[in-house]
Amino acid sequence: MPHRLYQTQVSADWVDYNGHLRDAYYLLIFSQAVDSLMDQIGLDAAARAASNHSLFTLEVHLNYLHEVKQGEAVEVRLQILGHDHKRLHLYLSLYRKGQEEAAAVSEQMLLHVDMNGPKSAPFSETTAARIEGLVIAQGALPKPEYAGRVMALPG
Amino acid sequence: MPHRLYQTQVSADWVDYNGHLRDAYYLLIFSQAVDSLMDQIGLDAAARAASNHSLFTLEVHLNYLHEVKQGEAVEVRLQILGHDHKRLHLYLSLYRKGQEEAAAVSEQMLLHVDMNGPKSAPFSETTAARIEGLVIAQGALPKPEYAGRVMALPG
Repeated sequence: MPHRLYQTQVSADWVDYNGHLRDAYYLLIFSQAVDSLMDQIGLDAAARAASNHSLFTLEVHLNYLHEVKQGEAVEVRLQILGHDHKRLHLYLSLYRKGQEEAAAVSEQMLLHVDMNGPKSAPFSETTAARIEGLVIAQGALPKPEYAGRVMALPG
Repeated sequence: MPHRLYQTQVSADWVDYNGHLRDAYYLLIFSQAVDSLMDQIGLDAAARAASNHSLFTLEVHLNYLHEVKQGEAVEVRLQILGHDHKRLHLYLSLYRKGQEEAAAVSEQMLLHVDMNGPKSAPFSETTAARIEGLVIAQGALPKPEYAGRVMALPG
């Protein structure tokens, strides 16, 4: 099953005049969830500083499904769609507490980078093993609904 | 040619510990550029309040191409990829002052919504005409490089 990665609460700084979470701040919550994933795979701030390696975001796709209000408790769940020796392909879903439907989803491609350069670089053995552990733990999951989308007006 | 939609400067609040613009804040700049577009097509804050209609973001795709530093002056340029009676399909590019290559691009699908509902609703005649004016002004443009992407690990 998807990994319950991150919990937070919608800050007053993140909402529009209607008290609804603004589009960019959905991505901030997903980005904070990726920070949490980095902590879990041996790429926390101290390790990044020591190794001078980090994860760069290459590409992000977002689908907005429901509004989220100021103060709501939210959770980000993670499905790893794929990975190679230096890339992570993720699917993140944002849930409001007590709601079964995701309020938003985000497909993301991340690249491991040697900041001396910067240039792309393979994951360390530890990080690669941690990623593999997460993939094993999630088990077999179907392709999520909003993965692999091309954007287009309805025909 | 693409419409020069919006200028701003990278705030200290938007950067990471390295002084680089964080992924979610690229989207905040694109989102502020869309606010500017709304002003230009008769959907400014006063008109939204009076009509109780607004634009909702349905879907966003982002490609990160170059880092952007704290304090840099940036400009967002707009190409309208398509539209129908209630949807806008946009391609936004973020340029750093003095640089010819985009630092990031974002393809977006926006929906005009009657907030009494909320439910989707056709653009007003004024807004539809303003959109048509922008399309005429931009002229014939090729499909941009990062439009219509499917995300995938390299094969």
